[in-house]
Amino acid sequence: MNTVRTSELEISLAELGRSCYARGWALGTSGNFSAVVSRDPFVLTVTATGLDKGRLFPDHFLRVDAKGKVLEGLGQPSAETAVHLVLAEVRQANAIFHTHSVWSTIVSELSAREHGLWIEGYEMLKGLDGVRSHVHREWLPVIENDQDMTRLASVIDRSLSEHPEAHGFLLRGHGLYTWGTTLEMAKRHLEILEFMLEVVGRTRSIPSTSCL
Amino acid sequence: MNTVRTSELEISLAELGRSCYARGWALGTSGNFSAVVSRDPFVLTVTATGLDKGRLFPDHFLRVDAKGKVLEGLGQPSAETAVHLVLAEVRQANAIFHTHSVWSTIVSELSAREHGLWIEGYEMLKGLDGVRSHVHREWLPVIENDQDMTRLASVIDRSLSEHPEAHGFLLRGHGLYTWGTTLEMAKRHLEILEFMLEVVGRTRSIPSTSCL
Amino acid sequence: MNTVRTSELEISLAELGRSCYARGWALGTSGNFSAVVSRDPFVLTVTATGLDKGRLFPDHFLRVDAKGKVLEGLGQPSAETAVHLVLAEVRQANAIFHTHSVWSTIVSELSAREHGLWIEGYEMLKGLDGVRSHVHREWLPVIENDQDMTRLASVIDRSLSEHPEAHGFLLRGHGLYTWGTTLEMAKRHLEILEFMLEVVGRTRSIPSTSCL
Amino acid sequence: MNTVRTSELEISLAELGRSCYARGWALGTSGNFSAVVSRDPFVLTVTATGLDKGRLFPDHFLRVDAKGKVLEGLGQPSAETAVHLVLAEVRQANAIFHTHSVWSTIVSELSAREHGLWIEGYEMLKGLDGVRSHVHREWLPVIENDQDMTRLASVIDRSLSEHPEAHGFLLRGHGLYTWGTTLEMAKRHLEILEFMLEVVGRTRSIPSTSCL
Repeated sequence: MNTVRTSELEISLAELGRSCYARGWALGTSGNFSAVVSRDPFVLTVTATGLDKGRLFPDHFLRVDAKGKVLEGLGQPSAETAVHLVLAEVRQANAIFHTHSVWSTIVSELSAREHGLWIEGYEMLKGLDGVRSHVHREWLPVIENDQDMTRLASVIDRSLSEHPEAHGFLLRGHGLYTWGTTLEMAKRHLEILEFMLEVVGRTRSIPSTSCL
Repeated sequence: MNTVRTSELEISLAELGRSCYARGWALGTSGNFSAVVSRDPFVLTVTATGLDKGRLFPDHFLRVDAKGKVLEGLGQPSAETAVHLVLAEVRQANAIFHTHSVWSTIVSELSAREHGLWIEGYEMLKGLDGVRSHVHREWLPVIENDQDMTRLASVIDRSLSEHPEAHGFLLRGHGLYTWGTTLEMAKRHLEILEFMLEVVGRTRSIPSTSCL
Repeated sequence: MNTVRTSELEISLAELGRSCYARGWALGTSGNFSAVVSRDPFVLTVTATGLDKGRLFPDHFLRVDAKGKVLEGLGQPSAETAVHLVLAEVRQANAIFHTHSVWSTIVSELSAREHGLWIEGYEMLKGLDGVRSHVHREWLPVIENDQDMTRLASVIDRSLSEHPEAHGFLLRGHGLYTWGTTLEMAKRHLEILEFMLEVVGRTRSIPSTSCL
Repeated sequence: MNTVRTSELEISLAELGRSCYARGWALGTSGNFSAVVSRDPFVLTVTATGLDKGRLFPDHFLRVDAKGKVLEGLGQPSAETAVHLVLAEVRQANAIFHTHSVWSTIVSELSAREHGLWIEGYEMLKGLDGVRSHVHREWLPVIENDQDMTRLASVIDRSLSEHPEAHGFLLRGHGLYTWGTTLEMAKRHLEILEFMLEVVGRTRSIPSTSCL
């Protein structure tokens, strides 16, 4: 992505953020969005903290290095920048999206005891990177929420190495993280996982299904 | 907020009202919105009564004093102006929003017997003013609805002093009130509480959860 | 409404129809909308049959007399014009809206055996014409669907005289009719009744509520 | 449809695709859309594979012959082109739409064991081609999903001849196919079937209904 002009990256991320807000996935200043600007030196652009995502614009992003130190931009980077940095490193993700939807919040609670959930047999899964058939079992880890970002990032790091095939994970009572090697792929993963979480949550709301 | 030009306040409130209508939170002339114009002398701008919030514009607001007497503007102020005045006084709120969503209506009935509900453990709560962690228990009072606005305002006044930490309350079978020291904060509180009410209502719709 | 210029009436009705389509209340050519142009002589403007309501424009309306005979316009008037004419006469309605929403369809089936449902205790009911308090019991009749429009219109006529206070009714497995003395009032009634039907349907989806 | 100018066909299909995306029926590159350009020689225009349907434009379509061989356009035709070709042939469909909605996915699983579901007694069914009354029983087949498109197309072919009256079918865990002799009819069928699937799914979520 070195050839992408910087401002285009932030324009695309801001547009994605506003669209997540419009879908109810990033209300009340929740949600954060990042992309790798360059790998050498490592530079990540990430949303500043505390913003209304319905009014997210390109100058609401900051550029940080691999340690999260601010290189450029105004305000504080999102408190969850440490999580983005882990994903950029261990998954080689170039785009990382974090949303708080109603269904991801609900399903994260329903599946907290099992530390995750299987999503299986759906055609929609084929849109996930590397998946070739609906005959696929996707494990979506659920990780306990934590305000200590260093500790949380290290728990996530461990979970990611235990589940090397996972395309995302849920933070309990909090929301979804997903990523991709490009913005387009991360957006696809986001839509697919949010879709599947809605399918899972609504299916559990059907008594004949959930009582079996 | 004394430095904000008056017309900008009403422009922002009208925009917020139309956006609430578009989300289904202020259908059929329901909902009302206010903001403090100045504290000394006390002036509140508030929606006129009986308006279609899908067509709410700046000249649909009236300015009233601390007693609710009209200082400026056409039409009658919202019947619930007395409630707005209580909130402006006892919570020092500078923006006060009242919405009628499907989920706030449903949850207000589900929690009427307990006179409120606890919302606990959700990251989204961190967006409420003064909350620093998802390890937070938010009490959302449910107050019996009443057409006698003087009596209702005094019941609300008492409930607010019993629950000094509350960021909003529900009127039973009626809807949500929330507020903030700025328009931005009140909007954030509104989105967060409506989000949480949807999470609570949908979680209660899942048999394995609600039967436990 | 004699002073309203004709074309404005159809412009407003077409806008309302497109907005109902956008909300999912008039999909697949369903739904029809009318307004009284004049009382003496009696002229009603009503949607032509078989139209995509997402593309409803003013020239998609026809004008008919009190017997439903076409006075002006292209195409056939909606098959349900006879129902509109009954409402214009016995309720003195000047605007009549018929929608097919998911929740009105579901609730009409749930309440078919009782030939209707009570909606009670909700603040939103205060927006219905003549209702002054949430302490109100609104009976929403459910009438069996029928393809014989003359017979259906006469069953509706009888139901309306049995329930002189009703602000609307459901056709079973079909949808909602509501009306008002003005377009604004009919729109308000539509939003309020659709809101209440969603509240009723979702409340019934909550096991602890529906099993009691 | 020979008289329709080619580019208009793709403009209309692209618009429909974007509108399906906006409704959540074609997220994450899912969904595909086609129309017959001419019958003699047979030419079908169909979406290229792997596209974000929120950004579907006329040049994202390819033209293929009756065997699926590309005649014109960039990229690969949708993997499911074989299914479109069967429908164009055995149903004489001139427009074929395939969507992945939450409700079609859920209902396809609920009705998989019975290989389909009856939808009966709803006024909305009258909008299906050839249906004259709500007193109609529509069988919507559910076909097992398969990544082998030749095999899947032949199973679909057989199912279509067993159910000559069907206006659509579900692929299990995958989504809906529907069609029409014109784009307008296919769009109507799509909206009607998606509406009915939502009604069916939500009705099954109501305990008193689903427990009976």
